Amino acid sequence: MHNRPVPRVSQDQLDARRKEILTGARTCFARHGYEGATVRRLEEEIGLSRGAIFHHFRDKDSLFLAVAEDDAATMVATVAEHGLVQVMRDLLARAATEDVAGWLGSQLEVSRRLRTDPEFAKRWAARSEAVAEATRERLQRQREAGVLRADVPIAILAQFLELAYDGLVLHLATGRPVQDLEAVLNLVEAAVRKS
Amino acid sequence: MHNRPVPRVSQDQLDARRKEILTGARTCFARHGYEGATVRRLEEEIGLSRGAIFHHFRDKDSLFLAVAEDDAATMVATVAEHGLVQVMRDLLARAATEDVAGWLGSQLEVSRRLRTDPEFAKRWAARSEAVAEATRERLQRQREAGVLRADVPIAILAQFLELAYDGLVLHLATGRPVQDLEAVLNLVEAAVRKS
Repeated sequence: MHNRPVPRVSQDQLDARRKEILTGARTCFARHGYEGATVRRLEEEIGLSRGAIFHHFRDKDSLFLAVAEDDAATMVATVAEHGLVQVMRDLLARAATEDVAGWLGSQLEVSRRLRTDPEFAKRWAARSEAVAEATRERLQRQREAGVLRADVPIAILAQFLELAYDGLVLHLATGRPVQDLEAVLNLVEAAVRKS
Repeated sequence: MHNRPVPRVSQDQLDARRKEILTGARTCFARHGYEGATVRRLEEEIGLSRGAIFHHFRDKDSLFLAVAEDDAATMVATVAEHGLVQVMRDLLARAATEDVAGWLGSQLEVSRRLRTDPEFAKRWAARSEAVAEATRERLQRQREAGVLRADVPIAILAQFLELAYDGLVLHLATGRPVQDLEAVLNLVEAAVRKS
């Protein structure tokens, strides 16, 4: 391969523009859900024309997937540092103070896609596995630190936490009351720890 | 009120016909999901014309709600007798041996409705509360029998189990692997019991 000079500024500009689009799209999907986030609303929220937006992303679907993948990457980072229970606590706090209906709707949209769209399911599996792996790694560190229960394999504890996370998403997405959920999450956390 | 003779046979016939329609509709929704259960498919599965079907139920939507309410009533009965963990074990066993994708899709359809259709949410709230109440009552009996942990209120334990149930529904609905879930359910059960 030739060692051609990289067009650095241009790439930086492209990256910045891409990030700008993702930020606006995230807000738009969160506010209106997948269906409600029309191209017109995406244009308004992002502040760019559809031509500019779809120069960077093939279509609304690709844009949605990019936002979802971005969110999954953020989740992996939070899980690695603070654990899946903390992700649940953060989600609960957000649900109590801001309108997360759209965001949750997007999560259910991901779930629907996983059922009905094998291509999407394949692309998504890697993201899903990254969250699972981060969860297992953090549990492993906790086990080494002696705070985890020792009688259940890490893989089972990780899946237990993921089950609780899925349950929380579905609970919040269906608009049910949140008042007791903090105590429920304490119980979830206690169930994986040394008693 | 007048004490008019009740047209007994006719009512029995109506009830039987209604039940027949519900049974066929349940199979159809389970097989094809809400969207996929077209009126044509409902006719085929039920073995009646659309005229006959919609003489008993206003529209596909009412039919879907009737099936969902029927399922919720069955779930309340199982919870009352065997508990919510057993409902989860039954669901897991079904998922391992038969195709429950359509049924699970219908559950997510209920979830979607709860978010987007306030009228549906209002009608559904009573069913949802009936399951919650059956769960609390059974936990209360278990507490009296001395098998339940004593340091967490019944209401919290019940919501913990419901969170796990919701998580299981979302997990299975998105077609993720089931192999470790039995061990996960053991952990869920252990978390509400006296250690």
